Formats: sequence, C-alpha cells, structure tokens
Amino acid sequence: MKFYDCKMAPNPRRARIFLAEKGVTIPTVQLNILEGENLREPYLSVNSRGLLPTLELDDGTRFDEVMAICRYIDELYPMPKLLGRTPIERARVESYQRKAEFEGMIAGSEAFRNQHANFAERSIPGAPRQSVPAIPDLVARGRQTIDRFHAWLEALLSQSEYLCGDAFTMADITTLCAVDFHKWIEVSIPATNTNTLRWYQAVAARPSAQA
Amino acid sequence: MKFYDCKMAPNPRRARIFLAEKGVTIPTVQLNILEGENLREPYLSVNSRGLLPTLELDDGTRFDEVMAICRYIDELYPMPKLLGRTPIERARVESYQRKAEFEGMIAGSEAFRNQHANFAERSIPGAPRQSVPAIPDLVARGRQTIDRFHAWLEALLSQSEYLCGDAFTMADITTLCAVDFHKWIEVSIPATNTNTLRWYQAVAARPSAQA
Repeated sequence: MKFYDCKMAPNPRRARIFLAEKGVTIPTVQLNILEGENLREPYLSVNSRGLLPTLELDDGTRFDEVMAICRYIDELYPMPKLLGRTPIERARVESYQRKAEFEGMIAGSEAFRNQHANFAERSIPGAPRQSVPAIPDLVARGRQTIDRFHAWLEALLSQSEYLCGDAFTMADITTLCAVDFHKWIEVSIPATNTNTLRWYQAVAARPSAQA
Repeated sequence: MKFYDCKMAPNPRRARIFLAEKGVTIPTVQLNILEGENLREPYLSVNSRGLLPTLELDDGTRFDEVMAICRYIDELYPMPKLLGRTPIERARVESYQRKAEFEGMIAGSEAFRNQHANFAERSIPGAPRQSVPAIPDLVARGRQTIDRFHAWLEALLSQSEYLCGDAFTMADITTLCAVDFHKWIEVSIPATNTNTLRWYQAVAARPSAQA
C-alpha cells in the first residue's frame, strides 16, 4: 500500500492517527499543499479531485475519503477496535464521527478558507476545474457552528470519558483533529468547558496525537 | 424499533430505500416538516437537533445520521449486501456514498434552502437555537458542485452498471435520492449523459424507489 499525505493538513491527520493507534506503518508520499503539489500532475492522475489523503493498494486500486481509508485499514487490522465494539457502539461512532466532521472539521474549513486570500477562487478543497469563489458569509456561519459543536461536546463529555463511552474511537480522533485545526482560526475550547478540557488533555497526550 | 421519518424529505428517503431493499419494516412516526413538527416538542426530546430521520431502539437508545441508521440495520439484516461484499468494495461504497452525499445531497440542500423564503433564518437543516441566516451565494456554488458531480457520475457509469460495479449499493441509493431532490431546484441529469440516464431508469424502476 501507499499513503498520499500532507503532514500539515488537518484532514489526512485523522487517518494518520487511526494508523498510529493501529500500529500500522504504510509507505507515505508527502505532498506540499502550500506549493500546490496536490493540484497538479502527477498527483491529479492519482486523485483527480486533488484531495488528500489517498490510499493506493498494491493492485493499483485507489480511494480517497478518510473514512473509506480507515474502514479498509480496519478490515485488515481489526485491533484495537476504533469503530465500535458492538452494533450500537458502531452506530454511535458513525453518528458522532460524522457530527465531528460536519460541525468541527468542515465548519472549521469554511471559517478558514473563506477568509484567506489563498483560497479566494477555491472556496472548496481540492482542484475544481473552474473558479469556486470564496463566500465571506461562511466565516461567521462556520464559527457559529463550531460554537454549537462545543456546547454539544461539553454536554456529552460531562456524561462519559470519551465521545462514545469508555473507549477511545474514531469519533475522538476526528474531534481532536477539529479542535487542533480550529487554532488556525484562533478558536479554542471555551475555558468553562471543563469536561472537554479534561478530554482534550487525555487524547492529546496519546502518542498517536503526534501523527 | 421505531423510525422517525418525513415522507416528503429527501434525506430520510435514503434510509427508507435501504430498509425496503432489505425487506425490513419498522413502525414509523411521520413528522410534518412543513408545519415544523420536527422543530418543536415532543420531537426535540427525541432529537435535540430537530433532524430527521432518527432510529429509536427498544431500550430507548436513539441515533440519527442516515449512515449510522443504515449500518445498524445492516448488522441486524446483513442480506442483501448494500454496503459492499469485500473490503475493497466496502471502501468504495463508503467513498462514493460520501461523494454522492456531499456533492449531490448537500450541494442540493445548499442550492435549495438558501434561495427559499422559508429558510431565511435556517440556512442549515434542523433546529439551531439561534438564527442561521441564508447565504444566497451558496445557491450558485451548490449548482456548480452538482454540475461537477454529474460529470463525475457520467464518467463512472460509462465504465460500470452501478456506481460501485455490478451490484446495487448504498452509493446508488444516495445518488438516486440526490437526483430526485434536484428536481426541487429544476436540475436534471444532462440529456447528453446517456450512461447516467440508463442507470437512472434502472434504479428508479426498482420497487424500493417508491419508498
């Protein structure tokens, strides 16, 4: 297998932490997104959308989308369980992981990209073939969504150690990546959200968080 | 189990078609979203975000997110396989289902909601506690994304019968729901996209498409 990655990008980090928790090492190709390496050949022949990460199998099969990559890795390396141990847990991980993705990662991306000169013509990630102009109103909406996400997260973590109960899962990974990504727009966990701060200390201290 | 649904809404339909393909019937509570039944009690006690659908288990456990619901149902009723038959197929279904969701369903929702007077203060689905003003620029961006989605879909379906090869999967379900939803904004499959039109005829003719 081969993993196309960008060390500084928040979204591939979700897959990197998942791999680190599994103890799996895959030969990795680093792309420099600041220099736009993901937006031109040869990478566009790997991923026509210019998105990162991509997983390439030995038979040449490729797919993107972090969750597709993580599910595939999980089939090859089932332990430790990071997608839930029972049907109900798996449904909860899916639901909360998606919430963290939409209201954490994507809201952060909207708030970041639409205020940044580099993305004036690329409001969405990847390499669209036409201009996709920034929409400045998405900055406030993204920040508002992150506020709601933090309120939800604090209520949840007042009831349980991790997002989905007593076990660390993919929902925690996506949330950690979202919270760290929000530093780029100077948004932090509110100081009064003591349960979230306790959770953050624990998950950020795991060796996998260095990935 | 109990399924909280809205027959006219495009997103719950994804779960309804999944259930119909599995041959599973669950007692269903219909909510009238035109009258805002999902945005007030008693439904907010079921789903604090006011989102549909929600699945409620007999022990009171509830979760939302269509994919969480479908994965749970799939564990109880594994046949027919709708999420892939092999690890590679499952990764592909996850990847393409997400693409259909982001570039089909969500792009359609952005194009629809942000032009409609009913959603002037609810640019995002559900029941946020504060106003989330419409962003008119999202209409053009959503339509642009749908155009790209159709180009991708046509190229894919020129190579295979269904989105993920020779078997009907959740990726087809989400795409069918997106294409039908786009009628609300008067967007159709381009007449020159003959492979997509052939695919649409086949999937829309399945009994489950009535769900």
